[in-house]
Amino acid sequence: MVAWKNMDTLASYQELAKAEKVNLVSAMSGENGAERVKNYSVPMGAEMDFNFGARPVDDNILALLADFAKEAQLTEKFAALYNGEVINTGEKRRVLHHMCRGQLGDAVIADGVDKREFYVGEQKKIAELANKVHAGEITNAAGEKFTTVVQIGIGGSDLGPRAMYLALENWAKVNGTLKMKAEFISNVDPDDAAGVLSKLDLAHSIFVLVSKSGTTLETLTNESFVKDALAKAGLDASKHMIAVTSETSPLAKSADYLAAFFMDDYIGGRYSSTSGVGGAVLSLAFGPDVFAQFLDGAAEADVLAKNEDLLKNPALLDALIGVYERNVLGYPNTAVLPYSQALSRFPAHLQQLDMESNGKSVNRFGEPVDYVTGPVIFGEPGTNGQHSFYQLLHQGTDVMPLQFVGFRNSQMGSDVVIQGSTSQQKLCANVAAQIMAFACGKQDDDLNKNFAGGRPSSIIIGNKLTPKALGALLAHFENKVMFQGFAWNVNSFDQEGVQLGKVLAKRVLAHETDGALKVYSDLLGI
Amino acid sequence: MVAWKNMDTLASYQELAKAEKVNLVSAMSGENGAERVKNYSVPMGAEMDFNFGARPVDDNILALLADFAKEAQLTEKFAALYNGEVINTGEKRRVLHHMCRGQLGDAVIADGVDKREFYVGEQKKIAELANKVHAGEITNAAGEKFTTVVQIGIGGSDLGPRAMYLALENWAKVNGTLKMKAEFISNVDPDDAAGVLSKLDLAHSIFVLVSKSGTTLETLTNESFVKDALAKAGLDASKHMIAVTSETSPLAKSADYLAAFFMDDYIGGRYSSTSGVGGAVLSLAFGPDVFAQFLDGAAEADVLAKNEDLLKNPALLDALIGVYERNVLGYPNTAVLPYSQALSRFPAHLQQLDMESNGKSVNRFGEPVDYVTGPVIFGEPGTNGQHSFYQLLHQGTDVMPLQFVGFRNSQMGSDVVIQGSTSQQKLCANVAAQIMAFACGKQDDDLNKNFAGGRPSSIIIGNKLTPKALGALLAHFENKVMFQGFAWNVNSFDQEGVQLGKVLAKRVLAHETDGALKVYSDLLGI
Repeated sequence: MVAWKNMDTLASYQELAKAEKVNLVSAMSGENGAERVKNYSVPMGAEMDFNFGARPVDDNILALLADFAKEAQLTEKFAALYNGEVINTGEKRRVLHHMCRGQLGDAVIADGVDKREFYVGEQKKIAELANKVHAGEITNAAGEKFTTVVQIGIGGSDLGPRAMYLALENWAKVNGTLKMKAEFISNVDPDDAAGVLSKLDLAHSIFVLVSKSGTTLETLTNESFVKDALAKAGLDASKHMIAVTSETSPLAKSADYLAAFFMDDYIGGRYSSTSGVGGAVLSLAFGPDVFAQFLDGAAEADVLAKNEDLLKNPALLDALIGVYERNVLGYPNTAVLPYSQALSRFPAHLQQLDMESNGKSVNRFGEPVDYVTGPVIFGEPGTNGQHSFYQLLHQGTDVMPLQFVGFRNSQMGSDVVIQGSTSQQKLCANVAAQIMAFACGKQDDDLNKNFAGGRPSSIIIGNKLTPKALGALLAHFENKVMFQGFAWNVNSFDQEGVQLGKVLAKRVLAHETDGALKVYSDLLGI
Repeated sequence: MVAWKNMDTLASYQELAKAEKVNLVSAMSGENGAERVKNYSVPMGAEMDFNFGARPVDDNILALLADFAKEAQLTEKFAALYNGEVINTGEKRRVLHHMCRGQLGDAVIADGVDKREFYVGEQKKIAELANKVHAGEITNAAGEKFTTVVQIGIGGSDLGPRAMYLALENWAKVNGTLKMKAEFISNVDPDDAAGVLSKLDLAHSIFVLVSKSGTTLETLTNESFVKDALAKAGLDASKHMIAVTSETSPLAKSADYLAAFFMDDYIGGRYSSTSGVGGAVLSLAFGPDVFAQFLDGAAEADVLAKNEDLLKNPALLDALIGVYERNVLGYPNTAVLPYSQALSRFPAHLQQLDMESNGKSVNRFGEPVDYVTGPVIFGEPGTNGQHSFYQLLHQGTDVMPLQFVGFRNSQMGSDVVIQGSTSQQKLCANVAAQIMAFACGKQDDDLNKNFAGGRPSSIIIGNKLTPKALGALLAHFENKVMFQGFAWNVNSFDQEGVQLGKVLAKRVLAHETDGALKVYSDLLGI
């Protein structure tokens, strides 16, 4: 049995807090710096490496982090999770998203079924549907092939699948596997649905309605919006919609859908990209084989996360260096900076994954914790960010850790040589340069041109952003967030903080308000 | 003459730091809360109001902020700026972006011309070109009309114009003024240009190359990328490209372009959306009349920013409450949360505007400051964010101020009634509910379901997101950032923090590296 304890009660954490800090400027300079960067690198699956040369640790702090991992039983807690214990204690649920991509431990029998078989079974059903749609065996009423898939969902049913689709759209184009274009409708703002519909070829669009509970108000509203549009176009909505939901939801057995695919309460929204929530839209867009490669990459990263050796477990290492930066060094934010335009929405997905999981002030027993927990996560792709907010990262008054991602090769292979280098080389040169500029800075007597340095970063370096690499990247961060939640002793799998707003919004719509809430409602014309 | 002093040397700042803090939970409760929200509202032009009812101030703190504004001479500094003083001392430049939309003070004669006339003249030239393109008087070599405009630029030449385009695309669709669709290429990542080109109808696309210096490496690289593609398609690039640049740039007099429009060194990239940088693409996309309305909205906000009465100057008020939150209350971040899908990239623009302007550690004389300056800015549209990172905002261990934006009416006017309310009503109900949930929270014996409240926010409420409203919104934040820079005594108009990375990247591309930089370069395959 594992023991769930607050971080500040652990002797190893006290040691960590007392340990001598690393001076990053000197550590990263000269040949010592070169040796650090060579040594501080861990394979993370799918031809990628997690390089932490520029994070503020040294061998002594790494040894203390290993002690902490052991005392906090972090890999044991992961084992408890994948073996089916009720880790989401607040909602009394298991946490089984890893089973969408592999069997890491014991078979988990719940609700009378083997859960791995259940998830695989749904993947197979989705693959069959996707293949039939692509083959023209499932068509619109006029017998014409569908060309576009539109996901209707919000939060975890939107950000992850959308980020994954955008990450692979161009890759699929040049690899001949872009079967259908995908669009996404998420916001309850009517301009979101109306805007997407205004550019759609409705007659050849298939909609994927995603809501685990089948009661998400935004999603049901957007479903109606779309059904109205289909009806106005003289189309039979039931021939254009599929559902991804739980077996007990009102959507599960409806004749309103071509098909329904199931997930369950053991997969949280923000962890659902590898379930049917991501599986339906990605299999329709790219074909089931591409989705399977994506799952394989995630499975590789998951296996690495089991490793008890901290230096062979990139997710655990990333997590614990992050905890050290957050709690010992006191950095409140982390920026995610992928040098890949394809990852344009990946930071937004990580923002949800991390902030919704670990933005908590109470431990898993509902007791207040006396330390800070999840940081703010934000980011944009480089090099765009360099021409935007990097000014503050380099010379602002607050230091924050940076998470770079870079790939040796572009996805589309189309390039141009200007001033002696390709665009891809310029892209990679920029991320290398940024790491060093942040770490070591540069002294200048004109303080306006001075760079203090000492600004930590890590970089995930891959060969190319393929479906497999994307899967490993996604799972790395899922596992990192999970380990940080274990370290902070919070429940990373519930989200009680979203409830109050829902309750008050219902009250506004029912005109049952008073005081300031009534004034705001009046001002907004409700 | 104005006196430029560090904030912590001002007596009024010391008073502010000592003043009794506001308990937001009690201030916003009951009928007192209702009165606050009614009273704490300032018109901000274009049928919008800045409501600061839920910010952590009261009449006493507002009076101290007014004292501070006076002692720091903030409106006098704005007057010095718009009357043409060299406010960007680091680069020895005037700061004249306000003149793109109006004449706030004296005529400014520089380089032998009246700058207002110069900017207006360029607007007229752009309008003439746009009208000719729309009328089919300027066409491709085959005499066919252009249907798409593609902006090639990065940083300020990308984020602002892109955010503005997305903000008005659907509005223009339903108002019959979407003349051309716009696309954007920014990143040096070759997959950015290749991805955009893969979905373009090249023969009917016109490209707007934007670089003030004419030497921005990303932009020149992407220009070559596009020219290659045009040549491969048998098209004459010079018939498909216009330039927006400075008169002294290498691009200014090139036969490679259909036309060149000019800006100058007095308009910083991140403040250039109302110059030709935004003007060319927006006038081509929506027509010059729409761009003129956008400028009118900005001009309205600018006039309000001249007001010496703090309570009639929304940008100054927003700025100073922000300084109070940042320096006295110690909040390191600000989230921007527009309840409007059309504003999906507006937070990314503000992120650049704010963080690049005020992410500085030295004052305008190059001396270190002893207080924190610009915060981290991030955000996503509501209601999407509610299903993502709001968990941390409600229940995380760090408090951060929130900037909501909401509109009574949707842009497209297409809506659906579900459970007794429209989508637009649901959208507005949600933002009202969130403000109150953040401010007042809700006690619960189960601390996992407890909301402490005391989380401040303001809301900008508009009637509809029109071109005019968008202009006022943009200028409000430009002026807010400017006033905060004045308060912190930093130069908000240079960006020395972006230089070191450029220098090191060139060194990598020239293979002139050693130490850790060489190792990173090798790992990235350069």
